[in-house]
Amino acid sequence: MSLDLHSWSNELGTLYDHAWQRLVRGVHDRHAPARHPTLATVSPDGLPKARTVVLRAADKSLGRLEIHTNLHSSKIADLMARPLAALHVWDNGSRLQIRVEADVEIASGADVAHTWARVPDRSRTAYSSSHTPGHPIPSALAYDNAPDPSVFAVLHLNIRSLDLLHLGSDHRRAQFTRENGWAGQWLVP
Amino acid sequence: MSLDLHSWSNELGTLYDHAWQRLVRGVHDRHAPARHPTLATVSPDGLPKARTVVLRAADKSLGRLEIHTNLHSSKIADLMARPLAALHVWDNGSRLQIRVEADVEIASGADVAHTWARVPDRSRTAYSSSHTPGHPIPSALAYDNAPDPSVFAVLHLNIRSLDLLHLGSDHRRAQFTRENGWAGQWLVP
Repeated sequence: MSLDLHSWSNELGTLYDHAWQRLVRGVHDRHAPARHPTLATVSPDGLPKARTVVLRAADKSLGRLEIHTNLHSSKIADLMARPLAALHVWDNGSRLQIRVEADVEIASGADVAHTWARVPDRSRTAYSSSHTPGHPIPSALAYDNAPDPSVFAVLHLNIRSLDLLHLGSDHRRAQFTRENGWAGQWLVP
Repeated sequence: MSLDLHSWSNELGTLYDHAWQRLVRGVHDRHAPARHPTLATVSPDGLPKARTVVLRAADKSLGRLEIHTNLHSSKIADLMARPLAALHVWDNGSRLQIRVEADVEIASGADVAHTWARVPDRSRTAYSSSHTPGHPIPSALAYDNAPDPSVFAVLHLNIRSLDLLHLGSDHRRAQFTRENGWAGQWLVP
């Protein structure tokens, strides 16, 4: 049964296409698994850091993903020191783990004004300059959330490699790299 | 409604207790969100790495979590170089992000024989010495999975800090550290 349902996992090309379909679906469907990946970075003092993010764009032809964040968040400090990230999705419906490794560009200010213009009001509260995410406060709600476009940042993830692991009746794992034109290579799971 | 359902998020003590309940449930219920956290490490060349793992034990009194892995997996190489990990769970039912930072001890061989004895046969296939996870292979199924207890490893995660973020009608975030006896400190979300 799972062989039929997941026959896309049998060939490198269809496995790659399926993973991108699932990433793109995350952008458009807020209930899709790829909507909320885990982003891992390395802090300036060399510690691994991981947190949930929202996937905002996925462009297969460019091999590029997009995430939005507050310029004062610790992930920005991490990425300023080391502009590399790992992005992780476990897609239970597809029984597929998607692991992305990417070089990250940080854009803000005038460069992202057109993106800010499309951010809904209810999401803008995450971009306040009056508080720094992670700053200690005396009580749980001692912060405000007046939007400030100057702290809005767009992370462009230029993918180096995609590592795909499908857990089926047999397990299959493959890696696809930009360097090899996304041709794909089977790996031991 | 969500205020009533999630009243555990209002106080530091109940927030902390709830997070541990969810971690412990992950050990015992394979459908619970904390069953499959994302483990982030730093590779020997300084890159962030993230992958799904299975949570095998959670001890609140010791502030300790347990994960099993193949000694030949890349996460072992990462942890040999830098014995630090971040563990991440998004618990959608509780609208709770759990971020763990931990020092990691790697145990194998005779030290883990009692743990190996309790690993079910169907899980033992992940611990084969005849192949190295991530090694290139000419076709998808060109690997075998004969169990070998000598490559079975137990990771003990001794928690340094727990960062808990609850997304409710108001967002609440707090950090709990071993150093401060898990007392807890509210943070800007």
